[in-house]
Amino acid sequence: MKLLRVGAKGAEKPAILHTDGTYRDLSSVVSDINGASIGAAGLAKIKAADHGSLPVLDQGSRIGPCVGNVGKFMCIGLNYADHAAETGAAIPAEPILFMKATSAIIGPNDDVILPKNTLKPDWEVELGVIIGKEAKYIEEKDALDYVAGYCVVNDLSERHFQTERGGQWTKGKSADTFGPIGPWLVTKDEIKDVQNLGMWLDVDGHRYQDGSTKTMIFGVAHLVAYLSQFMSLQPGDVITTGTPPGVGMGQKPEPIWLKPGQTMKLGIEGLGEQQQKTKAYAA
Amino acid sequence: MKLLRVGAKGAEKPAILHTDGTYRDLSSVVSDINGASIGAAGLAKIKAADHGSLPVLDQGSRIGPCVGNVGKFMCIGLNYADHAAETGAAIPAEPILFMKATSAIIGPNDDVILPKNTLKPDWEVELGVIIGKEAKYIEEKDALDYVAGYCVVNDLSERHFQTERGGQWTKGKSADTFGPIGPWLVTKDEIKDVQNLGMWLDVDGHRYQDGSTKTMIFGVAHLVAYLSQFMSLQPGDVITTGTPPGVGMGQKPEPIWLKPGQTMKLGIEGLGEQQQKTKAYAA
Repeated sequence: MKLLRVGAKGAEKPAILHTDGTYRDLSSVVSDINGASIGAAGLAKIKAADHGSLPVLDQGSRIGPCVGNVGKFMCIGLNYADHAAETGAAIPAEPILFMKATSAIIGPNDDVILPKNTLKPDWEVELGVIIGKEAKYIEEKDALDYVAGYCVVNDLSERHFQTERGGQWTKGKSADTFGPIGPWLVTKDEIKDVQNLGMWLDVDGHRYQDGSTKTMIFGVAHLVAYLSQFMSLQPGDVITTGTPPGVGMGQKPEPIWLKPGQTMKLGIEGLGEQQQKTKAYAA
Repeated sequence: MKLLRVGAKGAEKPAILHTDGTYRDLSSVVSDINGASIGAAGLAKIKAADHGSLPVLDQGSRIGPCVGNVGKFMCIGLNYADHAAETGAAIPAEPILFMKATSAIIGPNDDVILPKNTLKPDWEVELGVIIGKEAKYIEEKDALDYVAGYCVVNDLSERHFQTERGGQWTKGKSADTFGPIGPWLVTKDEIKDVQNLGMWLDVDGHRYQDGSTKTMIFGVAHLVAYLSQFMSLQPGDVITTGTPPGVGMGQKPEPIWLKPGQTMKLGIEGLGEQQQKTKAYAA
C-alpha cells in the first residue's frame, strides 16, 4: 500500500493511493497515518477496508509528510562508500548516527526555505525507513519485522552550520523545511529488495545524484538492529539512511550550493518522487 | 508556580505543588503540562485557578517527567569552562549543540537502566530550559519571553557510546531512561536570576558535582536566541544547558563510572531534587 496524508499543514487527512490512481480518504478507518496506525494491526485494518468505496480526495491538494507525529528523526551519515569518498571522509567502522529536529519535517513538495545566514545549503536524496513496532535490542535477522515501510527523504543540509560552527552535525541538519518526507509511506510488502532501489536527484533539471541503495555500507536491517542497541525505536520514528554520491559539496572543481529559486526533483524506485522549490527566508 | 505530572507512566495527571505542600490535580484546568498548556495563556489560566479547592493527589504517587510530549530535547555541550577543562576539550567558540532522543525522557525519581554493553555510564546535573512560545530568529534581549520555565535534568551519558563508537554524541546520550526531567517545571517568574543557581549531584552520598549556573560560558538567553537561528523552537521543547565540573569521566586519578545499585541525588537551587537508582538492563 501507498499511504499518504492530504491537506493543509497540521490538518492532513490519512489517505491511500488507490489502484485507480486517486487518493482515497482513510479518515473513517484511522485517525492519521502515524505511529498509532502503522503497526501490523493498523495496516491490516487499512488493508481490509473497501478502498474503492472511500471518498475521493482532491488530487490537487497538498500532500503532507507521509507520517505524522514523528518522535525521532534519525540520520545515518556517510553510509555510501562513494559518498564518503567525495566528502574526503574515511569509511566508517560503525554507522554514524545524528539527529534532525522533527520540526524540520515538511511535505514532499513544500517549499524549502534557505535559512538566514546560509552559506552552503545542500541536498541529499535518501531512503527513509519508518518504524512500525517498538524495537529494543533486536537482531539483524528480525529487524525488518519492526519496519512499517519506506519513503523518500531529502536530508537537506547546511554544510557551514554542520561543520564550521562548532561540533556536532545537528546544527546544520535541522532548519525548518530541511526534512521533506514522502509522498507515500510504501509498506514493506511492496518493496521486493530494499537494497536494490535506484535513486536520483536533479536540481533545475541537472542530474546530480544517480545511485542505488545497493551501494550502502550498512543495509537497512543492520541499521535498525544497530540503532536499537543504543535506544528504543518507536512506531512512527523515521531513520534516513544516508545519501549516494553527487551532493553539492562533492562537486568538482568547486562545490555547488543551492540558491533561492531553484527546483529539486528527487525520487527512489517504487517510492515516488518529490519536488521542492528553494526560497530565501523572509520574515 | 511549580507544575508537575503525577501518576503512572503514560497516564500522568497535570498538577501544581500548592503552597500547603500538597499536589493539586489540574485536570479540570488543563489536559496536561505540555506545549499546549505552558504558553502565556495556559499559564495564566493555571494561575487563575483556585488551587486550594482542587483535588489533592496522593503524595506517594510517582512523579512523571515535568513536561509531556517533548518535541525536541536539545543539549548544549561543554558549556561550563571548568567542565570543558576536566574533559580536556577547548572552550567552545560557539555553543555546541547535540540532541538526546525524546524516548530517553523519564520522571525525576524513576530508575536509570544502564544499557546493555555499557562500559562508561556517567552523570551530569544540568539546568533545563522549557520553551513556552515558538521562537525563530529571536534576539538575546527578548529570549526569556520565549521561556516558560526551568527544571532539573540529569543528562546521563555513556562515554564509550558517545565518543568511541563512531562520530556524533547522540549515540551515547539517548538510551532509554537517560533523560530524567523534573520534578517541577518552575515558571520563570519564580527564578530571580537563572545565572546564579547552585547545583549539585551526589552518587551514594558522595558529592561529585557542586557548581553554579553562574559559571556557564553561554547563558540561557544567549542559548535560546542562538538555537533559534538554526531551527524554530516549539512550546514544550527542552534545552539542557550543559554540566558543571565533577562528572565521572573527569575524576582523578581514574574516571569513575556508574554501576548498578547506586543512588544518584541531584538538585538545583529553587528547582527541586531528583533521586534515581541505577539498575542493570534485564530483558
